[in-house]
Amino acid sequence: MNRPDRSPAQPATDARRRHDPQVRGFASDNYAGVHPEILAALALANGGHQSAYGADDYTAHLQDVVRSHFGRRAEAFPVFNGTGANVVALQALTDRWGAVICADTAHIHVDECGAPERVGGLKLLTVPTPDGKLTPELIDREAFGWDDEHRAMPQVVSLAQNTELGTLYTVEEIRALCDHAHERGMLVHLDGARIANAAAALDVPMRAFTNAAGVDILSCGGTKNGMLFGEAVVVLNPDAVRHMKHLRKLSMQLASKMRFISVQLEALLAGDLWLRNARHSNAMAQRLAEGVRGVAGVEILYPVQANAVFARLPHDVSERLQKRYRFYFWDEPAGDVRWMCSFDTSEQDVDGFVAALREEMGR
Amino acid sequence: MNRPDRSPAQPATDARRRHDPQVRGFASDNYAGVHPEILAALALANGGHQSAYGADDYTAHLQDVVRSHFGRRAEAFPVFNGTGANVVALQALTDRWGAVICADTAHIHVDECGAPERVGGLKLLTVPTPDGKLTPELIDREAFGWDDEHRAMPQVVSLAQNTELGTLYTVEEIRALCDHAHERGMLVHLDGARIANAAAALDVPMRAFTNAAGVDILSCGGTKNGMLFGEAVVVLNPDAVRHMKHLRKLSMQLASKMRFISVQLEALLAGDLWLRNARHSNAMAQRLAEGVRGVAGVEILYPVQANAVFARLPHDVSERLQKRYRFYFWDEPAGDVRWMCSFDTSEQDVDGFVAALREEMGR
Amino acid sequence: MNRPDRSPAQPATDARRRHDPQVRGFASDNYAGVHPEILAALALANGGHQSAYGADDYTAHLQDVVRSHFGRRAEAFPVFNGTGANVVALQALTDRWGAVICADTAHIHVDECGAPERVGGLKLLTVPTPDGKLTPELIDREAFGWDDEHRAMPQVVSLAQNTELGTLYTVEEIRALCDHAHERGMLVHLDGARIANAAAALDVPMRAFTNAAGVDILSCGGTKNGMLFGEAVVVLNPDAVRHMKHLRKLSMQLASKMRFISVQLEALLAGDLWLRNARHSNAMAQRLAEGVRGVAGVEILYPVQANAVFARLPHDVSERLQKRYRFYFWDEPAGDVRWMCSFDTSEQDVDGFVAALREEMGR
Amino acid sequence: MNRPDRSPAQPATDARRRHDPQVRGFASDNYAGVHPEILAALALANGGHQSAYGADDYTAHLQDVVRSHFGRRAEAFPVFNGTGANVVALQALTDRWGAVICADTAHIHVDECGAPERVGGLKLLTVPTPDGKLTPELIDREAFGWDDEHRAMPQVVSLAQNTELGTLYTVEEIRALCDHAHERGMLVHLDGARIANAAAALDVPMRAFTNAAGVDILSCGGTKNGMLFGEAVVVLNPDAVRHMKHLRKLSMQLASKMRFISVQLEALLAGDLWLRNARHSNAMAQRLAEGVRGVAGVEILYPVQANAVFARLPHDVSERLQKRYRFYFWDEPAGDVRWMCSFDTSEQDVDGFVAALREEMGR
Repeated sequence: MNRPDRSPAQPATDARRRHDPQVRGFASDNYAGVHPEILAALALANGGHQSAYGADDYTAHLQDVVRSHFGRRAEAFPVFNGTGANVVALQALTDRWGAVICADTAHIHVDECGAPERVGGLKLLTVPTPDGKLTPELIDREAFGWDDEHRAMPQVVSLAQNTELGTLYTVEEIRALCDHAHERGMLVHLDGARIANAAAALDVPMRAFTNAAGVDILSCGGTKNGMLFGEAVVVLNPDAVRHMKHLRKLSMQLASKMRFISVQLEALLAGDLWLRNARHSNAMAQRLAEGVRGVAGVEILYPVQANAVFARLPHDVSERLQKRYRFYFWDEPAGDVRWMCSFDTSEQDVDGFVAALREEMGR
Repeated sequence: MNRPDRSPAQPATDARRRHDPQVRGFASDNYAGVHPEILAALALANGGHQSAYGADDYTAHLQDVVRSHFGRRAEAFPVFNGTGANVVALQALTDRWGAVICADTAHIHVDECGAPERVGGLKLLTVPTPDGKLTPELIDREAFGWDDEHRAMPQVVSLAQNTELGTLYTVEEIRALCDHAHERGMLVHLDGARIANAAAALDVPMRAFTNAAGVDILSCGGTKNGMLFGEAVVVLNPDAVRHMKHLRKLSMQLASKMRFISVQLEALLAGDLWLRNARHSNAMAQRLAEGVRGVAGVEILYPVQANAVFARLPHDVSERLQKRYRFYFWDEPAGDVRWMCSFDTSEQDVDGFVAALREEMGR
Repeated sequence: MNRPDRSPAQPATDARRRHDPQVRGFASDNYAGVHPEILAALALANGGHQSAYGADDYTAHLQDVVRSHFGRRAEAFPVFNGTGANVVALQALTDRWGAVICADTAHIHVDECGAPERVGGLKLLTVPTPDGKLTPELIDREAFGWDDEHRAMPQVVSLAQNTELGTLYTVEEIRALCDHAHERGMLVHLDGARIANAAAALDVPMRAFTNAAGVDILSCGGTKNGMLFGEAVVVLNPDAVRHMKHLRKLSMQLASKMRFISVQLEALLAGDLWLRNARHSNAMAQRLAEGVRGVAGVEILYPVQANAVFARLPHDVSERLQKRYRFYFWDEPAGDVRWMCSFDTSEQDVDGFVAALREEMGR
Repeated sequence: MNRPDRSPAQPATDARRRHDPQVRGFASDNYAGVHPEILAALALANGGHQSAYGADDYTAHLQDVVRSHFGRRAEAFPVFNGTGANVVALQALTDRWGAVICADTAHIHVDECGAPERVGGLKLLTVPTPDGKLTPELIDREAFGWDDEHRAMPQVVSLAQNTELGTLYTVEEIRALCDHAHERGMLVHLDGARIANAAAALDVPMRAFTNAAGVDILSCGGTKNGMLFGEAVVVLNPDAVRHMKHLRKLSMQLASKMRFISVQLEALLAGDLWLRNARHSNAMAQRLAEGVRGVAGVEILYPVQANAVFARLPHDVSERLQKRYRFYFWDEPAGDVRWMCSFDTSEQDVDGFVAALREEMGR
């Protein structure tokens, strides 16, 4: 595996360290560790006793931080992980008979082992899309039959910003989707596992494509942007939900020592760490895409708008390259791969990777 | 609130610190923060990229650590929290038609907002007990009717060690319960949210009352013993389970950056930190109980065997005392309260609390 | 087995008849067949096409019939069976985080294989009772903690009239229970699998202890009172529910040829067949109880208020008697048995059974 | 509405009859009533007491009948309705983490209000098809990733014979699909709500495309072929399932007076009633298709292989025609309609309908 640099900031060798902290790849932004400012925040919140289960001073303060981003009606409910955030959020917007319209590439459909169905009893109505993005027309392929008891009732449209394919909605597109959903009596969930990357790429505040655009509830990601663990369900439209705390608890997403999720979210969101990290990983993806565009035989598949690069290249090249840098096939029979950049991806990482790709293509 | 000491080890003031790290109470062991050795372990595992979702070097090594405690067949599945551990473990041992026999004071029945029922579709068959402990006779009140399709099939007995009432099973009692369950074709789950306190109190290895006694699956606690977050489902009888990884994921308990749960569990379990912390909190509970026993009008309700003291005292005294130290009523109409000690409870905390109790009783 | 009489009304022998229509026992009121007026109603509704799934003329008319019993706000939703009726009704009154308070002898707890938990995700909070009947004090053992997210939220009290033990609430008792529940923000479900027996025994209209007493939703039984199959969820308080049709469908309780449930309910409820059948089975239970009271060594266990007699007698006597008449042990170790009378139980059946009991006691 | 004939076999006028038994349309085969031989069977099984919940003589005998069709290993579990049959069958073949591959037009996906997801916690993986029929290639679009815990594990392929679009698999096609599924470790469910129509159309025994072709479990339809209510889950591969009785009960599909479902199934299946009814409804669909083919401006959409005719015609014509005969739009914006024939559709019904269609097309 690749060891692209030796940072002097790394702590001295410890016999119990089982990994090489210099090794980085392009497999996923959750292969990365924790940003130093986040680790420092954990230490800051440590010591003494704080009420468990969210009645602590850090969770209280987090509400102010979240409202500075998402408006005065917003309320954050810290949870453990992204699947948990999504399933809590979707349950909050649905009745027992509700269905959720989403892209057939959505994380809730393809990457959560059926948790929406099994934990929430949710019916997903999936729509194929060219690029992971829903449109009003695509929504209408499943948005009908509200009075028909034989059909699970479409109550929610679930978007992802950015999508699983690394693509982005414009602010106007999300506003149009929200208007479209609301006109049909449906509510809107936004899966923002990488919301910071989206805001950085669009160069707008996060509110621009969430509460200001009509989104009712948000899964606000933290782990993929440098946190150790933790996300937040952010209720943007409090009229749409009830008893979120019960819902979080029964969904097994209630942390006892919640101060340690909340202080991470504060560290990320109170200043500009969220934006610095996202801009950096986006920039690294741009650098990677630019480097790759010059390589004959490698095709970039989708617009590179955030921190992901999807590409098609010869299968044997990918396999050789994977021995040097970790990354995943996205559609192995087609030869499609995904390269993710993260907050700790360095320019040397990218340049080294592109050089390696050139080498392997040339063999 | 009480500020019993000023430890020089605390970091310097930081404007972003929102709490006083010198304040400790007796509300719960999860009001405590993180043990410094655990925080150090988090830093150790940081840096570089590690495979997400458990394919990292720390989770791999954790298996060795867990096997040193629970035998060579044991396998650990790190999860986020105790409810998650319990519900994953119980699902692993049951069919869709299965039921779980437990004490009517069990955490799975009274403190998980119905997550076993809602997430796992589990039927709980509860039995009243005098002290939170099941017996073979108590189990038999619900252990019947396996062939009767009208009755949810009793497939699991779920014990807690120590119990919600701070009481302990002896090794022999657990062995007898496991034998009893197995003879009837049932499996045994042990909720070990405070398993270290039990082992410390009994002065036996954890294996003595788990795999060696016949327990099939264990919820192995970490958070209440000094971790930041994280528990482990430990499979002791691999013949009893299948596809644990799918079960954990669909239960929304799969951490992406799992190395940070695993390294905490390693820090806790590889050396003697688990035992030191548990012995300390147990000793503080003994000190508290001894101090209280001399106070007229205060009755200790159950044997103080681990880190909890249950007591009955005049309601107005409790209310005044709660203004000085945080703790909970257990049965408010009866005047029963619970005082929990944790790894960071100091002798001064206890002595100060007993003195305050005496003062308030004397008013 | 016993063949107490030869009714000339029985149809001529048919080689495909596999049972002896003269054999009757005391096992259950659902061992009985179909009342002839019900069979005639099925034929009446046959022929031609009627809209499926409840949009037929018989289901429309059923609403008038049901309103004549339960008031102008009532609405009936025919379903297949009693478990289905209960689970649809309870889901209608609960949120995802809701819990249901019931007696620990309730059918929903002991006889539905966990369907409330598995299909509805419902948490049952059970209370032991001396006679199957809840009281305000018993309800309060579980009616607390609505704001505590760790606790499933008590939202419903579920009563059974008559109870599983054959006992009855008075009208005043049900009214007091409903008031008590409503004052605490809870709703009331009544499991009326044998509601006709209760009304007959109390000699009041069914409305007296349902809508007039404050019950919000009713499982209105039909099968045990002479129908071939079918029950109805009767919504008494329409403000408490939404989208019942979707709930019935997703609970797999929507009959396609619904006219054939509705016409049975009409045949039962439009005239006095419901009352005739119930009075008869109640009277047969009284006759049985009176006959048994004279037999030394046989103890009647609960007040005989409807169509069930619970008794305690020597185990070997029961076993010999079971070879002559079908009936069930209720608590076999204690020697408790249940004898049920049905609409087709004859005086000769009862007298023959009492004689047989005397014979077997005398051996 | 249309009154095509006056059958002298209809009973005399009864004031309580609320419908005209001479009116028939083409809306659905479950708009039809009950075949007279089925009604007679209900009367035959009536009288006396029979053990409830399936321990009766008719259900016992049903096993012989079912084995005469589906082989000596088959076992039938009568249930209430088709959704219930499907969800019980699919649960029987899946673990908690299982997924079911099906056509995106499958009844389990589009017509069961999410019952598979909500009751069974099942994840459906849907595939678009041109004609409602899966192929090995189409299955492979979702048949992968068994070891990937992020993905619901494909464990079952669910086919429908005939499909929701009225099309049929050949025996060879089903055998190839079963082989394909089994080679990948998956099991096969066949939704046979209209299995008799399929067998009649293919002119083969039902076993030819079920157990003999490798199907593991069958939803065997009865209601749409002349029964009053009732279907059967038929286990063809007993090695694939466990505790079916518990599964049926917890799914709220256990009838107390089961003899009345079983005797209907016997009446249908023991002789040739199932085949007579199916041949008739198929023949009526052929007659209808032939009549329609001569009408300019009406396009038949799929091969007419069973008892359904799908057609496209001008929207206004459909609307006028619906005032004379009941039928449904299938895809209203496209102008697609569905015309279903049933066991009681007469030649006059068809001819009258075709004539009416011609009239309305001519306006």
